[in-house]
Amino acid sequence: MTLMDIDIEKALHYLQSGDKYLPNLSLDCVIFGFHHNQLKVLLLKFKNLDFWALPGGHILKDEDIEVAALRVLAERTGLTNIFLEQFSVFGNLHREVKSFMHKVLEINQLQAPLDCWLFQRFVSIGYYALVDFSKVNPQPDTFSEVCDWVSLADLPELAFDHSEIIQKALETLRASLDKKLVGFNLLPTTFTMSELHKLYETILGTPLRRNNFQRKMLSLGILERLEKKFTGAANKAPYLYKFK
Amino acid sequence: MTLMDIDIEKALHYLQSGDKYLPNLSLDCVIFGFHHNQLKVLLLKFKNLDFWALPGGHILKDEDIEVAALRVLAERTGLTNIFLEQFSVFGNLHREVKSFMHKVLEINQLQAPLDCWLFQRFVSIGYYALVDFSKVNPQPDTFSEVCDWVSLADLPELAFDHSEIIQKALETLRASLDKKLVGFNLLPTTFTMSELHKLYETILGTPLRRNNFQRKMLSLGILERLEKKFTGAANKAPYLYKFK
Repeated sequence: MTLMDIDIEKALHYLQSGDKYLPNLSLDCVIFGFHHNQLKVLLLKFKNLDFWALPGGHILKDEDIEVAALRVLAERTGLTNIFLEQFSVFGNLHREVKSFMHKVLEINQLQAPLDCWLFQRFVSIGYYALVDFSKVNPQPDTFSEVCDWVSLADLPELAFDHSEIIQKALETLRASLDKKLVGFNLLPTTFTMSELHKLYETILGTPLRRNNFQRKMLSLGILERLEKKFTGAANKAPYLYKFK
Repeated sequence: MTLMDIDIEKALHYLQSGDKYLPNLSLDCVIFGFHHNQLKVLLLKFKNLDFWALPGGHILKDEDIEVAALRVLAERTGLTNIFLEQFSVFGNLHREVKSFMHKVLEINQLQAPLDCWLFQRFVSIGYYALVDFSKVNPQPDTFSEVCDWVSLADLPELAFDHSEIIQKALETLRASLDKKLVGFNLLPTTFTMSELHKLYETILGTPLRRNNFQRKMLSLGILERLEKKFTGAANKAPYLYKFK
């Protein structure tokens, strides 16, 4: 097999940049988007390896952890104004980080000393973000060839404990859906009731009766109804709504 | 003023034990108890200073973060089987840890080098725990003179950002009360409907109509009704319940 090149200069710089960051601490971002009635997450595929991973990074020694998470999100999505929440810390002693980092360096023919900061134990802070799918411009990082949306229903093989992190993020999203109405962050500025209905059904993974759903949403007093959407068939055109 | 002695040997051992722990990382535990219709938290009062703080600690290099939290809880409460959940990470760059640690050492006439691990930046993982008040045997640590329950309605001056941590823990407890029925962890094994009612009112900080509350709780199918509690006035004796 022919190896894809990585940018050696960037890679070496990263391997030697441990002093910039808080040691033993990382963050991982589960970025949710909604498209064609599918809930998706933004993943990176490693160069020369059949593994995908969540976008993540480290925290500069003089940086708030939230600012670090926003920086990682901006680097991968191009977006700066994102709904973002911490949801859990992953700190088991036996998280598989070290062995995986070895594989990444080996396949890319990079050398690092055994005490390289990347081979240490990492406690990772999990953030989930909700973005308007249409606004994201996915950007791979140094070690990845692709940064792309993947349907939650069809996840590829994931590195580290990233399956577990995604699962926990999804549980948090589900639990927050009614209480904090976070779902609106996944929709464009204007949307139809049908789109909102599909979004809730998809996130919750369960059918919701359309009439009940519409009644409940309207009763919350959070939706503003706009003009009819033009579809050519005037009598069938659905109303557009926006979040107040 | 006469200073209270601290155990110098233990204190020095602690100052020199930085190598044992993951650097820059701490944990703080908000331990809730319910007594005399008051929601309380377990706090430590520093020796020779008018500040209180949450029980907390550090994570051994070969220890899961959850195990570290359970260790801290066991040390302060004597309990080993505790309801415990992570709720947030506190990682602002300007958390006031360093200046406060200087005060603690100074008042106790302890010297530490400027690069002592305790003067570094700390990112703290917040856990909240719910315990049966009657079973706790509070134990101060090296730098504290008292470990005691304090009513949330009447908190003393707190060190670090511990007011903020308690506030966030309370918000999480309130949000989890209905969904996860966590409140039962705060009650003894058996309790009256009136005690359960008071617990919910106290945590939520709002009156709840007694009949509605009782109907709702019974409808959940989670309570087992036991024999009448003996009070001397047989016809007024309330039923005892336990959580199924």
